Amino acid sequence: MKIALMNEFSQASKNGVILQQLETVAGELGHNVFNVGMSDDNDHRLTYIHLGIIASLLLNSKAVDFVVSGCGTGQGALMSLNAYPGVVCGYCIDPADAFLFAQINNGNALAIPFAKGFGWGAELNIRYMFEKAFTGEKGQGYPPERKQSQVQNAGILNSIKEAICKNYLDALQAVDQELVKTAVTGERFQSCFFENSQDQQLTDYVRSVLAA
Amino acid sequence: MKIALMNEFSQASKNGVILQQLETVAGELGHNVFNVGMSDDNDHRLTYIHLGIIASLLLNSKAVDFVVSGCGTGQGALMSLNAYPGVVCGYCIDPADAFLFAQINNGNALAIPFAKGFGWGAELNIRYMFEKAFTGEKGQGYPPERKQSQVQNAGILNSIKEAICKNYLDALQAVDQELVKTAVTGERFQSCFFENSQDQQLTDYVRSVLAA
Amino acid sequence: MKIALMNEFSQASKNGVILQQLETVAGELGHNVFNVGMSDDNDHRLTYIHLGIIASLLLNSKAVDFVVSGCGTGQGALMSLNAYPGVVCGYCIDPADAFLFAQINNGNALAIPFAKGFGWGAELNIRYMFEKAFTGEKGQGYPPERKQSQVQNAGILNSIKEAICKNYLDALQAVDQELVKTAVTGERFQSCFFENSQDQQLTDYVRSVLAA
Amino acid sequence: MKIALMNEFSQASKNGVILQQLETVAGELGHNVFNVGMSDDNDHRLTYIHLGIIASLLLNSKAVDFVVSGCGTGQGALMSLNAYPGVVCGYCIDPADAFLFAQINNGNALAIPFAKGFGWGAELNIRYMFEKAFTGEKGQGYPPERKQSQVQNAGILNSIKEAICKNYLDALQAVDQELVKTAVTGERFQSCFFENSQDQQLTDYVRSVLAA
Repeated sequence: MKIALMNEFSQASKNGVILQQLETVAGELGHNVFNVGMSDDNDHRLTYIHLGIIASLLLNSKAVDFVVSGCGTGQGALMSLNAYPGVVCGYCIDPADAFLFAQINNGNALAIPFAKGFGWGAELNIRYMFEKAFTGEKGQGYPPERKQSQVQNAGILNSIKEAICKNYLDALQAVDQELVKTAVTGERFQSCFFENSQDQQLTDYVRSVLAA
Repeated sequence: MKIALMNEFSQASKNGVILQQLETVAGELGHNVFNVGMSDDNDHRLTYIHLGIIASLLLNSKAVDFVVSGCGTGQGALMSLNAYPGVVCGYCIDPADAFLFAQINNGNALAIPFAKGFGWGAELNIRYMFEKAFTGEKGQGYPPERKQSQVQNAGILNSIKEAICKNYLDALQAVDQELVKTAVTGERFQSCFFENSQDQQLTDYVRSVLAA
Repeated sequence: MKIALMNEFSQASKNGVILQQLETVAGELGHNVFNVGMSDDNDHRLTYIHLGIIASLLLNSKAVDFVVSGCGTGQGALMSLNAYPGVVCGYCIDPADAFLFAQINNGNALAIPFAKGFGWGAELNIRYMFEKAFTGEKGQGYPPERKQSQVQNAGILNSIKEAICKNYLDALQAVDQELVKTAVTGERFQSCFFENSQDQQLTDYVRSVLAA
Repeated sequence: MKIALMNEFSQASKNGVILQQLETVAGELGHNVFNVGMSDDNDHRLTYIHLGIIASLLLNSKAVDFVVSGCGTGQGALMSLNAYPGVVCGYCIDPADAFLFAQINNGNALAIPFAKGFGWGAELNIRYMFEKAFTGEKGQGYPPERKQSQVQNAGILNSIKEAICKNYLDALQAVDQELVKTAVTGERFQSCFFENSQDQQLTDYVRSVLAA
């Protein structure tokens, strides 16, 4: 599995510790990690608005399979990512959340609070969440006897988002293109996206935004 | 302020205790509560999919000002509500979440886990969350010196959702109309919506769905 | 009610923000606050071991009615305070804990984690805990129908501690007197203790330790 | 390692699910589990007062190396166990607590809330706590650079409890012997204690209590 980590400006200084935990857990499980947001306070500035754009690009182009995002409380990243079709982002503060979200909702993104409640032991909690988020088969339901209705509702949610949203590329083009340009300017994002995108239309679109 | 509470089938049996806490807190603050989802296990069956539909109808028609929703983990309701334009739904497990979401994100809905972590003292925690969600002026930022960028980002998120989504009524009409019909069939929902909707187009649309 | 706040060295820098929250809540409720531990990193150095000594002195002499303590995780303060007869210290991470402990256990001290989980919003959480810890009548049971057995068990616990421990003054004299001396050296502790102690024997003992 | 699990009356019905998680985790790590408290609502009735007695007997006789206890909020068990010399009991609500307590405080018992916050996913959270409580070397400090002062304070706490408490056997004999008799009457407790106690004096004492 390919996993993208993305931090925005308010908690950019924590990218190092989060990346370390993610790489440790993902490495043991054979997953690849791409650090596509800010790596420290001096990096190219992104807000949770930009995280939504790059998360949706990476997931809709199948450049990555999963996104780990967050902000101060996690709520901005959560809403920003969930605004897009093709992104199913849960909110996660403890390891059981990570497991339940994987089993019940079977989503492809997590938003985590990186300032609220983030004190001693926070890096432990993050590692434990990653352990439970990325281990085992997803979509098995919880409790297991509710699997059928949970899988069904997850499918309906996806189709609802398809109905509500414009076609993804049309949607993206309706967004302020300055926001998109800022979002896709980061070198590590570009490297991850251009090397792994499986959608030529999206690749072309991002190139055109960068060229504009 | 008009506040709608909505429970789905998996935690319908908890509607009584949640409603009691909400009415206690809202009553003291002069807010009105509308109990528009399931009131017990035998009520008209709604899933978190339906909660998204009725929440978006109530908020976009300005029938209510705020929605309290949830499900087993709260994540389904969270994603379902956030799928719609005009709905800004936070995830809330403790009173500080409620306060921070009100100050930073200034949203109009909360999704709460009504099974995960819901044991002794859960009704206290819910009451305390309501106290902090509904007291004081919203949108003041946290920490206060970040108010300007937080207000700005909240505004950008709204415009992004406008750009990504179809016009709300068009979006709703693109959704499986059987889902919409089930969502709007409840008597208490209809009473709240028809008596308070300030959008004639939406009112007409709901009437047409019910007549179909 | 007289409430003593005490911080140890590892989180001394947070004393200001904690004291501010406690004074705000206690002030509105008509309680008096005494800041008897470290006020910053450069203050007379205390560990959670010393907090147990000064908490037990203040409570057993009736100099104060309640103690708020803590350390990095809160566990050291918790165990140190509970080691003494006359001290009934709960562990508290959210407002419902504070309420439940007051109703079920009716104790006279709280230990709070001041580093673990202490990030954005921590000062809010602390304020909300104080609100619930210091409002309303204590010892009413939770759920209320269990009051009788809960009150009974709280009483038995006190008598068990009396049976297990030596007489308090004897116990204190059996402790390494250098630890006691360090514990009672702080100016603000002494001011609180000597002005409010209602136990002449304990007052004399502390004076003798300081004179040694 | 030998690990004793003990539940009291208010949450006895949860013993099955807790035992299952503990046995799963402990089994994988090569530890042995003894279920010495109530196994269901109809079992020999124990309160958190009795849990303190049997925990202290098992730990002081070296019949077991670690005790997992709890009650509705966990606070009663916490204070009851910590009342005794030779027992160092932490409070644990998430996996990071379990790890931090093992590293910083290096105790021999945990108290867990089995009703407060105990809803969907509670058995997952308990399993994850056990995973972190029983894996790896304890007492390594957290953060590691604070190991020395943390180990030192843990040692001082033990010597303080020795100083404050009577000799353990004297202490136990000063407690209401009816409480002790009720505490030691359970068949599974007796089996664990008599087969594993390494302290003949304590063994003889318990036999005498049972014979009285």
